[in-house]
Amino acid sequence: MIINNIQQNLRLAGADACLISTNVNLYYCTGRIFTGYCYIPAEGSPLCLVKAGKLNDSDFALHKPEQILEILAKAAYPKPEAILLELGEISWLAAERLKAAMNPKTCGDATAFLRQLRMFKNADEIQQLEISCQRHVSAYREIPHIYQHGMSDLEFQHAMEYVMRRHGSLGVFRTFGSNMEIFAGSILVGNNAEAESPFDFALGGAGQHASLPIGANGTTLEQGKSVMVDMGGSFTPYLSDITRTYSIGKLCNKAYRAHQVSIDMHNWFRSEVKPGTPCAEIYGVCMKIADQHGLADCFMGTKHQAKFVGHGVGLQINELPILTPRSDEIIAANMTIAFEPKFVIPGVGATGVENTYLITQTGVENLSILDEEIMDMISD
Amino acid sequence: MIINNIQQNLRLAGADACLISTNVNLYYCTGRIFTGYCYIPAEGSPLCLVKAGKLNDSDFALHKPEQILEILAKAAYPKPEAILLELGEISWLAAERLKAAMNPKTCGDATAFLRQLRMFKNADEIQQLEISCQRHVSAYREIPHIYQHGMSDLEFQHAMEYVMRRHGSLGVFRTFGSNMEIFAGSILVGNNAEAESPFDFALGGAGQHASLPIGANGTTLEQGKSVMVDMGGSFTPYLSDITRTYSIGKLCNKAYRAHQVSIDMHNWFRSEVKPGTPCAEIYGVCMKIADQHGLADCFMGTKHQAKFVGHGVGLQINELPILTPRSDEIIAANMTIAFEPKFVIPGVGATGVENTYLITQTGVENLSILDEEIMDMISD
Repeated sequence: MIINNIQQNLRLAGADACLISTNVNLYYCTGRIFTGYCYIPAEGSPLCLVKAGKLNDSDFALHKPEQILEILAKAAYPKPEAILLELGEISWLAAERLKAAMNPKTCGDATAFLRQLRMFKNADEIQQLEISCQRHVSAYREIPHIYQHGMSDLEFQHAMEYVMRRHGSLGVFRTFGSNMEIFAGSILVGNNAEAESPFDFALGGAGQHASLPIGANGTTLEQGKSVMVDMGGSFTPYLSDITRTYSIGKLCNKAYRAHQVSIDMHNWFRSEVKPGTPCAEIYGVCMKIADQHGLADCFMGTKHQAKFVGHGVGLQINELPILTPRSDEIIAANMTIAFEPKFVIPGVGATGVENTYLITQTGVENLSILDEEIMDMISD
Repeated sequence: MIINNIQQNLRLAGADACLISTNVNLYYCTGRIFTGYCYIPAEGSPLCLVKAGKLNDSDFALHKPEQILEILAKAAYPKPEAILLELGEISWLAAERLKAAMNPKTCGDATAFLRQLRMFKNADEIQQLEISCQRHVSAYREIPHIYQHGMSDLEFQHAMEYVMRRHGSLGVFRTFGSNMEIFAGSILVGNNAEAESPFDFALGGAGQHASLPIGANGTTLEQGKSVMVDMGGSFTPYLSDITRTYSIGKLCNKAYRAHQVSIDMHNWFRSEVKPGTPCAEIYGVCMKIADQHGLADCFMGTKHQAKFVGHGVGLQINELPILTPRSDEIIAANMTIAFEPKFVIPGVGATGVENTYLITQTGVENLSILDEEIMDMISD
C-alpha cells in the first residue's frame, strides 16, 4: 500500500522513478535498513540495491552508484529519464554523484512528497504507535519511584532512560532536519525550562555541555520546583511523545493554574478537533485560551516562546503537520499528532501535558491515557 | 589555532570563505552549537549568523540564508566570490539555496578538508579525549558487577548504558555518514557477533529490530559465551572507543588464543607504530599475524569480515584515518586512533581488545589503560 501510494505520486509528478537511500525512508518503503538504494519505478516492483547489509533473494548487490543503470538493465527495467531523489536529505555531493551516474533528463525532490505521505498512517503504522504509547505509559508509571531526595535533573534523566530501555525502548530517536540532535528526551526542572534552544524543540533546556545544548543541566530537584518529563518513546520504530509534570512538594498557585489551562486545551482538542480543522486554528485557539487566563507571556516559554503547540509523530519525532500560527495544513484522518501546550513559570519550571493523538474519521483518539494532574513526588 | 588552520586551507584552495552549518563543524570552529552559519573568511574574524540559539554580542541574528550577503555587507566584509560549503554533509536543497543566496563565482566542498584538519588534534582536544578515556575506563571497571546470572545481552546493554551515563556520558554519539546510526555502543554475545551489518562498524551485531539492525539482539549470557563490550565514550565532545572482552565461565581454547593474538597485535602497535607508518601497513601486519596463527578466517568477522582494523576518533566516532588495506594515509603525530583487531569464534562470540591511542612525536601513547585479559564474570 505504501509502495502503491508512492507510485501514484510518482505518476502524478510525471516521474519515472524515485531512488531512496535514507534510513527512515528505506524503512518506510521496505521495512528494513541497509546501505544502498531502493529503486521505486512508477510502475512495477521496487528493487533493492544493497551495498551493505542482508541481501535478500530479490535484491541486487551493488558497490557504487555508478552501477545502478547496469543493474536496472540487467533487471529489464527501462532507464528512467525523470527521477526523484531525496534532495532535502542526501548531501549535495551524493545527489550530484547519483545524477552523474544515472544521467536523467530531469531530477526532482522526493523528500517533501515522502514526508507528506508519511503524515498519513496506515493500520499497521497506527498499531505500532499504539504499542509505543502503551509501553511509554507503563514506563511513566514508574516515575514516582525514581525520585530520590536531593537528586539532580541529570540523575533523574539517567534513571528515566534506564526505565525506558527496560520497558523496551529501541534507543535511537529519529528526527527530521540535519542538525536536530536529541538524546532519549528531556527532563526539565526549574528555570532550565526558560533556556533558549538552538533546535526546533519546544522548551529545550540548556543541556550540560556546549556541545549538546539540550535537556537537563544539573538543576537540583528542590522543594517548589516542577519536573517536566518529556521523553521520546522509541518502543517501536513509531515514536510516541508524552509529557507529564511532577512536583517536588507544593508549587505556587500560578503553576497549578497554568497546568489546568493546558488540560483545558487538551479537553478542547479532544472534543473539537476533527478532520477539516485547520492546524493554524489549533494554535490560535490555544493562544486565545492562554491570553484569556492572562498566561500568554508564559505560554510555550517566556523569553523564548516556541511558535507551535504540536507536531506529527511517526518514524521521526517531528513529522508533519506542525501546529503553527501560519500553517496552511488541515487536520485529516490517520494523522498522528503530539499536542503539547505548555507553560513556563519562572522560578518553578514548566507545566503542562503532552499526549499522542490519532485523528479518526470523526475526531480524536488519545493513545496516551495516563493521569494528567501534577503528581507530587515527595508525597509518594 | 583551529580558525587559523582553516584560513590557511582556504587560502591554499583559493577560496574567499567557507560557510559552516553542521553541528560537529560548528562546535569544532566555534566551541558551541546553534542553528545558523559560521562564516569564516580567508582573512579576518569569523562571524556567527544565528537563526536559533544563544546570540552572543559579536553574533548577527538571521532568519534565512537569503540575508547572508546583506549581513556581510553590514559587517563590512567583502562579498565572497569563491566559497566552500559542506557539500558532503548538507542536503542538495540546502546547498543550492545557499548558492542562490550568495551567488558566488565558484563553490567547492569544505567537508573533506575539515575532516582532514580534524584528524590532527591540538592540546585541548587531546585533553578532552584523555578525560573521556579516563571516565570510560572507570565505567568499565564496574562491568563485572553488572553481570547477573541468566541475563540477556539487552539487559546487560541497558545496565551498561546507565553506568556510562552515571559516569558522565553526555549521551549523543556522533558519527560521520548520513546513514550511520548507533545507540551508545554495542554489547555482542555469542553468534550475534557474526551478524552482517549494514553500517561501517566492525562486528555490528544484528540488533533487536529491523529498524535498527545493530547491537545486542536478545542473546542470553550463557556458560561458554564471550561478552564483548564496545561502548562509545561520549564523556566529553571527544569520543573514546574502548573494547574489552568478558566470559561467562570458561571459553574454548581458540577464543583465548585469538584474544591473545589481538593483544599481540596491540603490543606490536604500541612498540612499532609511529609517525611515518603507513595505515595500510598496520592492516597488513595484523592480517599477517592473524594468518600466521591460522586465524585469518575469523579475523574481524567470519562470514562478513570488516576490511579495517581501526579508525580515527574525535568529535565523531569514525574520523580519519581509517586503517584499511588500501589506505594511502600515513600515521602522523597528534592523530588519535581506536585500534580494534578482533576475532569472531562461532558458537562463542567475539574476542579482542580495542584501545584509544594518541600518536606522539615518537610513537604511541595508550589513553585507555585497563587490564586486557578476558575477565570471567561468573568468578567475580
